[in-house]
Amino acid sequence: MGEVKIIAVNRSAYADNDLEAEALRGYLKDKGTFLVNVMSSPGAGKTTTLTKLINLLKNELRIGVMEADIDSDVDALSIAKNTGVRSIQIHTSGMCHLDAGMTKSGLDEIDISDLDLVFLENVGNLVCPAEFDTGASMDMVILSIPEGDDKPLKYPLIFEKCDLVLINKIDTIDYFDFNFERCEKDIRWRNKNATIIKISAKTGEGIEDVKTYFINKIQNWRKE
Amino acid sequence: MGEVKIIAVNRSAYADNDLEAEALRGYLKDKGTFLVNVMSSPGAGKTTTLTKLINLLKNELRIGVMEADIDSDVDALSIAKNTGVRSIQIHTSGMCHLDAGMTKSGLDEIDISDLDLVFLENVGNLVCPAEFDTGASMDMVILSIPEGDDKPLKYPLIFEKCDLVLINKIDTIDYFDFNFERCEKDIRWRNKNATIIKISAKTGEGIEDVKTYFINKIQNWRKE
Repeated sequence: MGEVKIIAVNRSAYADNDLEAEALRGYLKDKGTFLVNVMSSPGAGKTTTLTKLINLLKNELRIGVMEADIDSDVDALSIAKNTGVRSIQIHTSGMCHLDAGMTKSGLDEIDISDLDLVFLENVGNLVCPAEFDTGASMDMVILSIPEGDDKPLKYPLIFEKCDLVLINKIDTIDYFDFNFERCEKDIRWRNKNATIIKISAKTGEGIEDVKTYFINKIQNWRKE
Repeated sequence: MGEVKIIAVNRSAYADNDLEAEALRGYLKDKGTFLVNVMSSPGAGKTTTLTKLINLLKNELRIGVMEADIDSDVDALSIAKNTGVRSIQIHTSGMCHLDAGMTKSGLDEIDISDLDLVFLENVGNLVCPAEFDTGASMDMVILSIPEGDDKPLKYPLIFEKCDLVLINKIDTIDYFDFNFERCEKDIRWRNKNATIIKISAKTGEGIEDVKTYFINKIQNWRKE
């Protein structure tokens, strides 16, 4: 199997993460690189979703991926092998989330000078990543059917702050009790403006809609 | 639906959580109450597993449950309704884990004087709960098939420190790629002594084995 670059990042020395995150958003705008912060529980399907999505988008946009994990490099290897796009692994030195400083370190390593779009796959965790602004251009959350429809109720902040919610593994709906109506109502309670798209990263269902979402989102962002 | 007590706990003022956790373990031993710290990703099936298990154990042991979440009281209500045992909800004030001080506050509220066994359902999170000793008599992790077999590789600490790993949702094995051999090998790499039991909290498969595990574990603990 191929090799990917692994970098270790530490908690930012900056006291004010919010200020640093705002500065990073400005820097990305100047460079013309759109950064997407991808969050979910462990095993909700971040890497599989990104793989399917990138294969649909890579002829139109120059894409890079930064995979953050406590340990291992399986995700970065998987992305590199299955999409061919530039991919690095970020080790968080035991940290349960990424902050703006750690994100900037990752961007410096992957080199965004020739990239239109970078996906940052955050640590699998519905709590801590929501509390730290990474400086990304937008936030997305993947919630998977097997996790249950009560997650927006139990982990409100992550749903409150995201622009896009993908409800993944809809091919398994017959095997789990999952009430879409309840789930969407609880997301809307926290967040009136989030876009919600149902997908199956396994079968590819709904991924075209996600592609369209990103094409439009990035076009609008460039005009802002 | 019935009501359950909801308490809000804050991060402990104690500088040394490890010392406080050790003291709590001694206190529990004196009181004769065995405390189990239950950890998993969001949606791996902690509440459903506890419900099935408690209904098998409740004629032999006097049981209580403390449900920790950032928000909502759905789990404590569910446990109270479906098992009849005493149950409280702990709100973690946004925190992603419980420490020993927060656990002690919960135990004071639920009142352990007439309880043999208390389950503490930690916040759904594979990272932070592993880093803080709650003072429990033992730690267990529930990993579910839909999450994938690579979780012990990506979240090593939680598997390293646990006594019992339940692999849940085995009724869904045909719908997901999950290699038991790989998963068990990666758990064993970190932790030679963990007991691993495959279960389906939905169908009840394997729950009798978990019951036997706890009966033996508590008997041995009383003799220690």
